[in-house]
Amino acid sequence: MQNISTCDRKALDELHSTLKVRYSSLQHLKLNLNIARGVPSPEQVELSDDLLSLPGAADFMSADGVDVRNYMGQQGLREVRALFSESMEISPENLVVDGNSSLALMYDCVSHAWRAGVNGGTPWHRVRGGVAFLCPVPGYDRHFSICEAFGIRMIPVPMHADGPDVEFVRDAVAGDESIKGMWCVPKYSNPTGATYSESKIRALASMRTAADDFRLFWDNAYWLHHLTDEAVQIANVVALCEEYGNENRPLVFGSTSKITFAGAGLSMLGSSRENIRWWLRHASVRSVGPDKVNQLRHLRFLRNSDGLKALMQRHKELLAPRFGIVERNFRRLLEGTGVASWTQPKGGYFITLNVLHGTAKRVVELSKQAGVTLTPAGAPFPGGIDPTDSVLRIAPSSLAVDDVGQAAEVVAVSALLAAAELRLRQLAE
Amino acid sequence: MQNISTCDRKALDELHSTLKVRYSSLQHLKLNLNIARGVPSPEQVELSDDLLSLPGAADFMSADGVDVRNYMGQQGLREVRALFSESMEISPENLVVDGNSSLALMYDCVSHAWRAGVNGGTPWHRVRGGVAFLCPVPGYDRHFSICEAFGIRMIPVPMHADGPDVEFVRDAVAGDESIKGMWCVPKYSNPTGATYSESKIRALASMRTAADDFRLFWDNAYWLHHLTDEAVQIANVVALCEEYGNENRPLVFGSTSKITFAGAGLSMLGSSRENIRWWLRHASVRSVGPDKVNQLRHLRFLRNSDGLKALMQRHKELLAPRFGIVERNFRRLLEGTGVASWTQPKGGYFITLNVLHGTAKRVVELSKQAGVTLTPAGAPFPGGIDPTDSVLRIAPSSLAVDDVGQAAEVVAVSALLAAAELRLRQLAE
Repeated sequence: MQNISTCDRKALDELHSTLKVRYSSLQHLKLNLNIARGVPSPEQVELSDDLLSLPGAADFMSADGVDVRNYMGQQGLREVRALFSESMEISPENLVVDGNSSLALMYDCVSHAWRAGVNGGTPWHRVRGGVAFLCPVPGYDRHFSICEAFGIRMIPVPMHADGPDVEFVRDAVAGDESIKGMWCVPKYSNPTGATYSESKIRALASMRTAADDFRLFWDNAYWLHHLTDEAVQIANVVALCEEYGNENRPLVFGSTSKITFAGAGLSMLGSSRENIRWWLRHASVRSVGPDKVNQLRHLRFLRNSDGLKALMQRHKELLAPRFGIVERNFRRLLEGTGVASWTQPKGGYFITLNVLHGTAKRVVELSKQAGVTLTPAGAPFPGGIDPTDSVLRIAPSSLAVDDVGQAAEVVAVSALLAAAELRLRQLAE
Repeated sequence: MQNISTCDRKALDELHSTLKVRYSSLQHLKLNLNIARGVPSPEQVELSDDLLSLPGAADFMSADGVDVRNYMGQQGLREVRALFSESMEISPENLVVDGNSSLALMYDCVSHAWRAGVNGGTPWHRVRGGVAFLCPVPGYDRHFSICEAFGIRMIPVPMHADGPDVEFVRDAVAGDESIKGMWCVPKYSNPTGATYSESKIRALASMRTAADDFRLFWDNAYWLHHLTDEAVQIANVVALCEEYGNENRPLVFGSTSKITFAGAGLSMLGSSRENIRWWLRHASVRSVGPDKVNQLRHLRFLRNSDGLKALMQRHKELLAPRFGIVERNFRRLLEGTGVASWTQPKGGYFITLNVLHGTAKRVVELSKQAGVTLTPAGAPFPGGIDPTDSVLRIAPSSLAVDDVGQAAEVVAVSALLAAAELRLRQLAE
């Protein structure tokens, strides 16, 4: 296909007509496909179906003699904390294993800090002029929704292939005491798939912050979620922060939502002893403790760190082909057209498709009208507004393999058609 | 035994010596018994051991076609809402079934109201001079802890055998816009076992409140938790509030913590459509939804409202004898002594023992030194301070039947000894 950005008017007219025909034929397929959210496929959740009958009759005692059926145990079962400790590189003492949602853990950390302050600091809701969070963009919309709910100002931070712009971050946190937090998805980030380099993590761990109670909200959602054999490792933010005397800076989050059952897994919080005590103190007012039967159930199923990794290998075998199909379709349909680029993540759940500036919303609309639901354009930005209207998040995980190619084709053709429409309008002006 | 309150000095001296010997012999038993919290016994949680291998292989679809293993479903499975709907007398549309803690539901309702306001009202944290809750006393310490965490002023309300002093409540809420809520355990209340009469519930449903956003936090924790065949029924607060045009007033909470597994059950919130929408809107920022596998698991186990009631019958068979033993021991040791009275609950988890004013703390101390742990004196009062130092909460559920008698004896003898000590001190002054 010709380069839409540079071709002449006549070529553009022809291209537009061709694309309309192509788009129309896709519409006739009457597709109904959803690539909006990072939802595991039925085949993926099926990998953990043994959980449906675990822990099994008469199995209700933890190794240290806790009857998991009864109350108590705010921090989670010790042996389950040990299970995640190895791959999370955080000691069991510094880990909490909680309920089915790491988002809830993040929300509650913000909530406690906002209401009561962090380790003796001023409660965030009392800070005159309000508080702010740094938000690498594009980022995860649910992080931004938490900020919105608490009236926390969001400061967008440019995101590169090796992590956020740390010069920008350093300057911001050094000079502004109202900046209390930063959202980070350090590995296989949502939505670009970028992974933070060691030097960037070191910079975040060591930088001077005007606020004593500045916290890295380290959402390590995809720590074991590889799409290639490279199995990318990242620097240990807890160890690095400790090295620089900032041990209370990181709040590390993880979950098994994309390991076992998406809606019925476990969540983890790792941090300094002081932060864990802070969290436990507040959490114990909210509830008597997490569901420990589900923790024992997961222990019986996953067994140990090797069991965990073996399961992730099977997820990779299901996910990698889907990502490969999207990549091949994008290359086939978009390469050389001058209107799109896309990320090739080594893990996680998303591909970011960058389309011609000013066309992302139109691509979502066109895709929808051809039966493919995308994440709303703008969702990966604070306030839902993408300043260049060009970033799209593609989540191919939940589709059947046979459908992934068609969904990718719809998106690609929509991107081309939207670009042609825009150029025609520009030439007409 | 003689009446300690009225006997003469000589008799008191003798009594004191006798009690000291008796107490000392109890100490020699080296007991280690805990009657501090309303925790089910191992025999009770065992009743639900089938849950340990449910829902079972290949059982993961709800009746309306939801794959419970995956994300979504903020309000809980429709068929599980229907299961609780009958006995809670609230329609499935007006119910939420959530995670393992109704305390967490209450906390989150307070939290959302405090941060963002209720249905368009001023956020509670912005109310000049702060907000207040009415707290029938004695009451549930964890309710009061939530108020403390949010800096909510607590106004004690006298509690009678048929519910709170509604004259007091009416006057307070009519004249003070800062009163935003009231904690109620309307049936088999914690810790007195009192049940609200229909006229009191009607008064609470119909009264005029200065605050539009006043809410009854209706913790119906023991709605099916009978200790006698009377199976006390209470008036339907949701229906009554609706009748008086105050449909947004009640927030009804329930849980299966004392029905199935204490740490791994389900929680329920029932209210008006508007309140449920309010809750769902806020909850959806915090998490993608509750553990629906556990909901299906409970459905398979409980089946229907009859299954639920049959299970509660078996709990009663385990609990009623324990309460009976405490009652018999209290009668045997304390009747006619003039220093103690106690409640005889028809349900729930607690007996309130009223000891001589000024001795409750000492009774806790003496009991502890004889190997029996009680709830701290003062715990059932806001701020942990019992103005007359006389109220003790007895929770016999978790003990082995053979131990209940000894625990009750230790408490009774401690109450007598503390009373004798106090009178001796008074006579010496």
